[in-house]
Amino acid sequence: MTVPRIGVTPGDPGGIGPEVAVRTLSRLSALPPAAYILFSPARVIEAEEINLGVRLGARAWPPAGPAGPGIYLAPVAGSFGAPVVGRAAAENGEISFRSFEAAVAEARAGRIDALVTAPISKAAWALAGHSFMGHTDYLAGFYPGIVMTFWSDRLKVALLSHHRPLREAVAAVRRDALLALFRSLHASLEKLPGRPYRLLAAGLNPHAGEAGHLGREEEDEIRPAVAAAAAEGIPVTGPFPPDTVFRDALGRKDAVVVALYHDQGLIAFKLEAFAMGVNATLGLPFARTSPDHGTAFDIAGKGVADARSMEEAVRLAAVFSATGS
Amino acid sequence: MTVPRIGVTPGDPGGIGPEVAVRTLSRLSALPPAAYILFSPARVIEAEEINLGVRLGARAWPPAGPAGPGIYLAPVAGSFGAPVVGRAAAENGEISFRSFEAAVAEARAGRIDALVTAPISKAAWALAGHSFMGHTDYLAGFYPGIVMTFWSDRLKVALLSHHRPLREAVAAVRRDALLALFRSLHASLEKLPGRPYRLLAAGLNPHAGEAGHLGREEEDEIRPAVAAAAAEGIPVTGPFPPDTVFRDALGRKDAVVVALYHDQGLIAFKLEAFAMGVNATLGLPFARTSPDHGTAFDIAGKGVADARSMEEAVRLAAVFSATGS
Repeated sequence: MTVPRIGVTPGDPGGIGPEVAVRTLSRLSALPPAAYILFSPARVIEAEEINLGVRLGARAWPPAGPAGPGIYLAPVAGSFGAPVVGRAAAENGEISFRSFEAAVAEARAGRIDALVTAPISKAAWALAGHSFMGHTDYLAGFYPGIVMTFWSDRLKVALLSHHRPLREAVAAVRRDALLALFRSLHASLEKLPGRPYRLLAAGLNPHAGEAGHLGREEEDEIRPAVAAAAAEGIPVTGPFPPDTVFRDALGRKDAVVVALYHDQGLIAFKLEAFAMGVNATLGLPFARTSPDHGTAFDIAGKGVADARSMEEAVRLAAVFSATGS
Repeated sequence: MTVPRIGVTPGDPGGIGPEVAVRTLSRLSALPPAAYILFSPARVIEAEEINLGVRLGARAWPPAGPAGPGIYLAPVAGSFGAPVVGRAAAENGEISFRSFEAAVAEARAGRIDALVTAPISKAAWALAGHSFMGHTDYLAGFYPGIVMTFWSDRLKVALLSHHRPLREAVAAVRRDALLALFRSLHASLEKLPGRPYRLLAAGLNPHAGEAGHLGREEEDEIRPAVAAAAAEGIPVTGPFPPDTVFRDALGRKDAVVVALYHDQGLIAFKLEAFAMGVNATLGLPFARTSPDHGTAFDIAGKGVADARSMEEAVRLAAVFSATGS
């Protein structure tokens, strides 16, 4: 049986990442058939198994023979201190960074098909001397054309820009950047089941600018980018008024709204996805998904974290990797 | 019986305004007890009664004696052409402008307590030579401190800016403007039933700027304005991350989210209010509400318009005027 090889990183060991990762994998029969490979120092996984009272029974990765479905552990080499639960700490940052680094190296080498990343702490990475802003920032160093997307049953959203001040994000709404985004999205979405997808481009200004009366970006940047993409056969329409395009896309399985800045997309997404949203990075040669929440230091170690978003992230990674995205 | 006097303008006679106004008033027993006064040329109301097959039985306004509950017609003087259904036309613009003008004059004179305005067409006003951007723009000429708010069962939102290009709206996030908004909102909300209200100030940048790493406006403008308002006893907190503040406010009867630009507030509001949202202008000496939709020229005259938002606007006007807001 050939199954996708899905790497899983438990994220910051002081947050809820190990809990949602271990809890999700402990319900293996509810997950798509795959080889799930945890990239982590063994002690982090063992501590979480004790904490949750579960046994994953992880085997060594890589296995001696062909990899069948099940759970594997790829121990991460390094000299690590004991994790500190409930706050940003250098020890935690070193563990989560090295685990992610190891998993990405395997993905880049083609030895795993997908990667699911539980949340890290940017502050902990900084304390450990790693200056990346997060998983995506690290990946962008290898793959400059990556696109942040957000997936849920009711709404799918792609972002033109992510962690930028709004003032800069507005200035970055340029036709060349938008056209590149449409092309990258189209190339990734075409490979997925459920295609064809349709891209709905949001406007930037109230009422999408009302033909230039409430802002020029729609006429000068967005409309030309949409026209150029459509001329290439990319199924994109817009710009649509930002305050109605998300409502219009709700429940439409084929619709992906292209949002122009972080909160334009995420205000809508977080209202609709509830606890089930998944973040997916497109434009990589492998699939990468993550749950739509942070380390939640305040509830770490209490066994009360909601693992549904992590579970959905695993499911989506399986869908993506089964189709070679 | 003393009842509130609620003026109603049917809006653009080529759109769905007369339909939702007449349909709402035709179900008088379902509405709060009030004197409902239609400001309109009589022919517009009569045509709509025929169209919908209803009879309002409107009496003349002002009545000879004290005004009891019921429906009244305040005919609007002028020389009007026949309305044109389904598009922006000068004839329509002249009718809707003069009707609104007459109703506002009565409200300013204290002869009505509240005003409910069905949607007009800005384009029709322009064709008729009236250069205002809409109802609110006209009112702002008399009352410069007015605040746009949006009301529904699940979410209430106030806007710092409304119909401005996003680039300008970002530049207008200044502490003095915010403090003035908090004061005006607080003064209006204090008079309403259901108080005390709590104001939740949204941030401007992703994650509310992450202590200045993703934008300075939170530290330089918003936080000082919140602190100054709180020092005056205004119940305001924030700034909160824009992509979670609306979710956190959902279903909290006492929470009003202060949004910093049009789509920040309205993306969330339109997802949550469905067809039941109401627009309320605060900071006036009388109440003013309106349905959260436009003229809908495409379905005008077909008898299929959804009157629920108009009905909710009438109900909210009654609540506001009963408490002297």
